Order: sequence, then structure tokens, then C-alpha cells
Amino acid sequence: MASRRGVLGGLLAAGALAGGDARALAAERGTGDLGIVVERASGSVQVVETTGRTSLGRIAGLGDLSHASAVFSRDGRHAFVFGRDGGLSKLDLLRGVVAKRVVQAGNSIGGAISDDGRLVAVGNYEPGGVRVFDTEALAPVADIPAAYGPGGTARSKVVGLADLPGRGFAFSLFDAGEIWIAAVPPDGPPEVRRFRDAGRQPYDGFVTPDGRHYIAGLFGEDGLARIDLWRPELGVRRVLQGYGRGEEPLPVFKMPHLRGWAVAGELVFLPAIGRHELLAVDRRDWTERGRVPTHGQPVFAVARPDGRQVWVNFAHPRNDVVQVVDTQSLQVAHAFTLGRGVMHLEFTPRGEQVWISVRDSNRVEVFDTRSLARLDSLPAESPSGIFLTARAQRIGF
Amino acid sequence: MASRRGVLGGLLAAGALAGGDARALAAERGTGDLGIVVERASGSVQVVETTGRTSLGRIAGLGDLSHASAVFSRDGRHAFVFGRDGGLSKLDLLRGVVAKRVVQAGNSIGGAISDDGRLVAVGNYEPGGVRVFDTEALAPVADIPAAYGPGGTARSKVVGLADLPGRGFAFSLFDAGEIWIAAVPPDGPPEVRRFRDAGRQPYDGFVTPDGRHYIAGLFGEDGLARIDLWRPELGVRRVLQGYGRGEEPLPVFKMPHLRGWAVAGELVFLPAIGRHELLAVDRRDWTERGRVPTHGQPVFAVARPDGRQVWVNFAHPRNDVVQVVDTQSLQVAHAFTLGRGVMHLEFTPRGEQVWISVRDSNRVEVFDTRSLARLDSLPAESPSGIFLTARAQRIGF
Repeated sequence: MASRRGVLGGLLAAGALAGGDARALAAERGTGDLGIVVERASGSVQVVETTGRTSLGRIAGLGDLSHASAVFSRDGRHAFVFGRDGGLSKLDLLRGVVAKRVVQAGNSIGGAISDDGRLVAVGNYEPGGVRVFDTEALAPVADIPAAYGPGGTARSKVVGLADLPGRGFAFSLFDAGEIWIAAVPPDGPPEVRRFRDAGRQPYDGFVTPDGRHYIAGLFGEDGLARIDLWRPELGVRRVLQGYGRGEEPLPVFKMPHLRGWAVAGELVFLPAIGRHELLAVDRRDWTERGRVPTHGQPVFAVARPDGRQVWVNFAHPRNDVVQVVDTQSLQVAHAFTLGRGVMHLEFTPRGEQVWISVRDSNRVEVFDTRSLARLDSLPAESPSGIFLTARAQRIGF
Repeated sequence: MASRRGVLGGLLAAGALAGGDARALAAERGTGDLGIVVERASGSVQVVETTGRTSLGRIAGLGDLSHASAVFSRDGRHAFVFGRDGGLSKLDLLRGVVAKRVVQAGNSIGGAISDDGRLVAVGNYEPGGVRVFDTEALAPVADIPAAYGPGGTARSKVVGLADLPGRGFAFSLFDAGEIWIAAVPPDGPPEVRRFRDAGRQPYDGFVTPDGRHYIAGLFGEDGLARIDLWRPELGVRRVLQGYGRGEEPLPVFKMPHLRGWAVAGELVFLPAIGRHELLAVDRRDWTERGRVPTHGQPVFAVARPDGRQVWVNFAHPRNDVVQVVDTQSLQVAHAFTLGRGVMHLEFTPRGEQVWISVRDSNRVEVFDTRSLARLDSLPAESPSGIFLTARAQRIGF
């Protein structure tokens, strides 16, 4: 028995500092409070920590990071960054290096990691489909072309890729109007279930926090599509049919994102396409329960982890504001004007802080979500997505 | 900019092994997949990881660990272990050592960590009350005696201590029949709100995953007590009044635990005291929706993170079995006979594995929760509680 003398006995005394603007990245530290901030214009990310709210360093050379997103290994040490140019980069957050990088497609749009942490899947526009890699070496494991049409010769863009329990993934085919559910067993080919006629032009999708419902937003129809993954035999059902998409001929400046996890108590909050409002949907029967008028066209609507607030950012040209919606009263309780280009926001897992990227002011702003006081403001080069390692511990992130 | 050359540049090559049965505890690793297994009889814990499903080493010298529980720092590096003898031990999981230890009371019963990670609170039987320490040095921050009765001279045992958003804690006073809500501001004394006449002999309590409802089980009454923490002005309300506690004069072999987080979709599953059944309660209106007959008196009823199953263990003498309840049909779907003294069970955060401690066989059994296949069996000395670092990322754990 090692007793209190210690198993490693203080082999490592101090961390080390090196390189450029790196400040304090040390190898011996916990990873539960780490995250990355995407610096879109420079193809880099900053590694940050949310306990002292500091930047630990920068990792560059990641290619085109417009619309980039990330998932994390189950131990929180590695980030997998999905670039728009098809690049898939595995970052070692402890050492601050690119551990591995492959360019796996010509144009891609996000990805997911399997529940066992062994597989990373990427949704591709070109060539349309999903490619699956092992998380250790980024070696190819499976290729799922999004084939459709006569003879199955066409390839659809893939959007809304989300993980499911059981080494599973759900995703939508924009051009084909289909939703596919795939499981990738440890041995043998992927098992794919196709749902045809899911709806016209699904543009994004998400899985509810319990992994049960997959929801796809439809650009070509006035509604959303839903599959109950516990009862897939029921097929695709419509949600909020006729909510008003296109009712007013507002131009759509930016497609909203559905990955905000705005599941708050009994309600799910969804951005309405082309409208200045959020839709509040009953989680039990998927009917509309109310609408919240907002400052602009919502892009991300993200629930604070306790579900008592939903924080919202907006499309150009109204993208300088963040609004805080009270989920009990369905009213906007507060608004911040933060500068042009509020791109993304991410809560710490217990919700006491929110990190907000403001592109044109080159800042990441950190707020206390109860007092609404600004806790810190960190410099960053045109920051966009913010992703914390706690995502590794959630279904469907 | 540090670019791909790396911020730390490979300062650390390999981990090191040392001491007794320590196998692979290395300082440079992620902490998101770590956990501890309490070895009650020997006053030690094993540090384990759930990716390769191995034990990394043992940390001893922790005193009386009967009924011990643990919480984790927000970075996942440190565990705070609450011993029955009032000992509060801060463990460094990366180095495998006791970083700090205080004996803060004569008899204690679990604790909680604040949402900002700065405070650790301990619920004490003797002297009755809550003591709060800073997580850095375990220095005292606040003392909240559970004073009640004429002149406030009596001290009640404290049970069911849970964290709340905003550096808050909720707990119950067994002898006083009260529930208290306390917030500990960064400066100034704790702000305590007392709810008197909460019910007779609250024996445990928990907070729902959204931090909204605090529920206390009552030993002295046929029902439970609930406070809506978003509307505390409504006071304490009864849940499941008259569910049948004491209806059949079964002896109560072991008090059930309510911290199982058996919140599954729209239902909350609660062990019925002294009965061989689980109660299924509607999360929206807190009325009974059904009962599940079980093998014995439930001790822990824990929802798989997707909420599709609840796994249950039982009191002596029927403590050799684990049952799996399907939350849709409210039926027992499977049962395992694992040996005498099934003490605790813990899911990995995305639910693909469950770890189960079996005291008398000196094993921790790990199962795949979908195939129900046994993945691994690890030796441990009289294992009891199992706690994974992902708890740091949850409200109310």
C-alpha cells in the first residue's frame, strides 16, 4: 500500500513556460476546467481555464476555422477541432500542441465523439457524408457516404451531426431531406438506419440532453422534424408545423444554430428562422407554449445549466447584443451591448459563469450569471467558438 | 505565437510508477475519466480511470470511511473525502497523495462543494451543524451551528447537505425537523434561511439536477418534504403524503439514500422506506405516477444518465442483487446476482458503463449498460462508495 507517501512522490516540481504569448500552460494539472477559444482569422485556438479565468497559451496551424467546432476526449486532455476546410485536428491541451492532424474532406461542418470516447465522426459537405476516425491516431474507421437519388449516385451535404448512446451518431442530409442514424460497432461495418422524407432542407440538428429525441430544423419548410430514438418505429414527426417561417419576408442573415441546448426545465427554446423571436416548446408533447420577442434573429439560444435563463445572440446586423431570457416569465430580463460580432457563448458546467466571444473587439468577456457583473475580459484574435472540456461529459454535445 | 511547436515542448516524457500496488498513476494526464473507490475497512481509496478501466493506485490514511462520500474540485484534480469520524481529506489524484487533511468534527455525514469551487461544506452530527472550508487550504470559512429549541441551545444532526447555485447549500436538521438554505458570500457571514416545521425526522435530502427543488425524505412521517428554491416564499410542501411508510410493519434494515439522482425524463424515482418498491413521481406536479415492486428495500436508485433505466441495490439481507428498472414500462428488466454487500453504483457521465462495488467479494464490477456484459472486475478491499470526477460538473452532486 502506497499510503500517504504518495504514488508519484512529487516527480514534477513546477510547470514550465515557453513560446510567444503562452502564459502558464503546465503539464501537471486537472483538465476539468479547461477549454478552447477559436481564433477564426488566424487559424489558432487559445487554451483557457475557468478557475482563475486565464489564457494558458495558443495553438496555431489549424487551417480554416470559420464555423469551427470542437469535442473533447473523455479524460478532457484532448480537443478535436473540426475546421471548415475538412481539417480534423487533435490538440493536446496539457502540452499545448497539435498531437495529430488530418485533412479528411474538402468541406466539413462539425462532428461528434462517441460515448465510449473511441470514435470521432465528421459531417462533410464535400464529399457529402460522414467519416469516422479512431480518437487515438485519427486513423479511418468507417466512411458513410450520404448517397441518395436515382441509383444512389448523388451525395448530400451532411449537417447536424450528434452523438447517441451506444457508439451512435445521428445526422441530417440537407439535399436529400433525410435523417440517418448510424451505430459503429467495435467490429464490423456501420449499421445505418435511413429516415426518408424527413423534411425539406434540414439545416442543423441536435439531440436532447437525454439522448432521446433528435430534432432537425428545416430551411425548406415551416416546421421542424423530430425522431423519438427510443421508438424509431414511429418515424419522423413534425414539430411546430406552421410556426411562421417565411410568414414575414425577412431576409435570413444567418442560419440559426440548434446546438444551444436550450432545454430549460419543461421547455425547449428554439430560434425561429428569419424571425425576431424564440419559440418555447413543451418538452412533453412538443407543442408551442409561447414565444419570446427578441432583439434580432437569434443565432444561439443557450440555457444556463440550471435552465432558469436562456442567453441569446443575434445575426448581423444586430449582432452586438446578448439578451437574457427568463424561462419562467418568458420575458427578456436583461440585455448587454458588447460590441460588433458577438459570435458564441458558453456556460461553465454548473452555470456560474458565461464566456462570450466578441469578434470585432477582439475580446472574450466573462460574466457572473447571477450578479451579471463582468468578471474578466481576455484578449483574443477575432474569437468565435468557445468550447469547454465539460462537454465531454454530456450526451449530444 | 507558439504554433505547433508546443507550449511545453515535451518536458515530461513518461510517467513514473512507485509504491506498493500503485500501477500507473502518472502526473501528466487528463482528469475527466478519474474517480475513487472507497475501501471502507482499510481507510483508503483506490484511484481509478474509466477509459482503460484500471486502478491507478491507492491512497491510505483517511480514517473511518464508513458511510464516506466525496466531491471533486472543478478541475477534477482533487477529491474531498468526507469520513464518518469528521475527517475531511483533500486528495491529489494526479500525485496520489493526501494534499491536506483536517478532522473538523466528531461525527459527520457527507458534504458538498460550491459552484465556484471555492468552498467545501461538511454536514455534521456532532457537533450538529455545517462547517465550511476553503478548498485551497481547508481553512475554516464559516460555521453554521444547527441551533434549535428553546433558547436555541440544542444542536441538531445535519443530513442531506447539497450544493445550490450561487455559493449556496441546502440541508436538513434531523432532530429539529427543519430545512435550511445557506449562501456563503465571498465576504461577510453566511446568509441562512430557515424553514421550520419541514417534517419529522428528515433523514436525507437531494437537489434536482436543475438545482430547483430540494427534497427531504422523512423518517418520522409518511411522506417527503419539498421546497421550490426558485419560489422559496411558498415554503415547504409535502410530496407523496401517505405513500405507505409504516403501512406494513417491515423492519427498516438500512435507511435508503436519496442522492441517487434517479431523475429520469419526466419521472423521479424514490426508494420507499421499509417497503420493497420504488415510487415513481411526476416531476411536474410531484404526484405519484406508479410503483415498481423490487427485490428488497431499495438503498440507492440511480438513473442511467439518459434516464432510460434506473439501477437499484438493496438493504441487508437482500443486498446481493442489483435490479435494472425500465423507466418507460416501470418494470424490472434485468437482475444481477453479484455477491453479498452490493454497496454502491456509479455511472460514467454519458452512461455507457456502470461501476458497482461488492463488499464481501472484494471486487468492483464494471458492466456495459447496453449489452449488460461484464467489462471488467477489479480487486478492492471491502469497497463501498464509488465517485467519479464528472460529479464536479453537475449541480447538486
